[in-house]
Amino acid sequence: MRIALLGGTGDIGEGLALRWAYDTNHEVVIGSRDPERARGKAEEYMTELDSRGRDVKVTGFTNEMAADRADVVVLAVPAYHLVDTIEAVADGLDENTVLVSPAVGMKRDDDGFHYNAPSAGSVTQLAAGAAPEGTPVVGAFHNLPAARLANLDAELDIDTLLVSDDADAKETVRMLSAGIEGLRPVDAGGLANASEVEGITPLLINVAMNNDGMHDLGVTFH
Amino acid sequence: MRIALLGGTGDIGEGLALRWAYDTNHEVVIGSRDPERARGKAEEYMTELDSRGRDVKVTGFTNEMAADRADVVVLAVPAYHLVDTIEAVADGLDENTVLVSPAVGMKRDDDGFHYNAPSAGSVTQLAAGAAPEGTPVVGAFHNLPAARLANLDAELDIDTLLVSDDADAKETVRMLSAGIEGLRPVDAGGLANASEVEGITPLLINVAMNNDGMHDLGVTFH
Repeated sequence: MRIALLGGTGDIGEGLALRWAYDTNHEVVIGSRDPERARGKAEEYMTELDSRGRDVKVTGFTNEMAADRADVVVLAVPAYHLVDTIEAVADGLDENTVLVSPAVGMKRDDDGFHYNAPSAGSVTQLAAGAAPEGTPVVGAFHNLPAARLANLDAELDIDTLLVSDDADAKETVRMLSAGIEGLRPVDAGGLANASEVEGITPLLINVAMNNDGMHDLGVTFH
Repeated sequence: MRIALLGGTGDIGEGLALRWAYDTNHEVVIGSRDPERARGKAEEYMTELDSRGRDVKVTGFTNEMAADRADVVVLAVPAYHLVDTIEAVADGLDENTVLVSPAVGMKRDDDGFHYNAPSAGSVTQLAAGAAPEGTPVVGAFHNLPAARLANLDAELDIDTLLVSDDADAKETVRMLSAGIEGLRPVDAGGLANASEVEGITPLLINVAMNNDGMHDLGVTFH
């Protein structure tokens, strides 16, 4: 399967790229608004993978070119770039492309971080509203510890929650998630359930801020 | 320490009563609007504890009498009874009573359960607004699996998140939480961070509804 990681030069994008390239045989393509930066990062990832005996090709392109012909497009961009990123790659999206939204909107005050829902109800629903008609959208990878994900020596042993109104698309992302060692996909229902999933991300930051020795956290349901 | 469990005849109340009575030496007092029901449940809990070789006294009273002279008052009532329960026991609350709010507001639609924040921002903040001036309020025990909690044979191995603006009160509840075997207290910061904590409860129900073999769930941060 060909996975395009738009914003794949950022922290969650880097972790997903490395994990999929290391743990699976999926083709990983890095997208960025700046194709030079995408190519540079793709080479960095290949060097890291090669140092671990994994000789795989990771390529870098503009977001538009990365999304073109991808089976799965992951929007690993900040929430405020979500809609313009979807619009930029819309020509490459159709009913055969699974669009994955891991972004979360947050605001900060003196107490810590808070979930900042867009008027669509959640960032995942915002992505669904901006996607071309018929493109299936899945919310996933919202609550992953970025540095741990990008460190192939670090054990994950955490869950990722999936929300979607499209059963086939959700199954594709479930399979992609399960391919990453130590990452367990957990079904949280339809897109309407996305805000409670996204709300965990500011909570993880608040927990890290308030507890010595707890940082770069994930969550497990059991 | 004397702990009053208002609504201690309900499911979360039952679990906390049994666990504190079994695992610690704190005095557990059950409160209910109906004192007969409170006494009946207290006797039920004592029978259960006795069958496990734990000969302890659990008493049952009206909520008002249970809260009177308690060191810690836990509002184990549904969110829609929270304010009238606080008002009913207000004479027994002061700056030396720690008021603990585990309630969560939820609504349901075709997709599942959703967090339903009151205008105060969270149910915990609603409790803080309704409490007599100076009474410290702690949000805790929001996301506990009720049946597992009430089954002393069941292992917990889960976290409970604490929020409060009062460091001493939070420390008291941290200590009470840590006294329950398998329950780890985790500090989530101030009261303003309560909504993300409460939002986990509908998510746990959605996860249970959408995954075979996952039910009566707790959450762990790591």
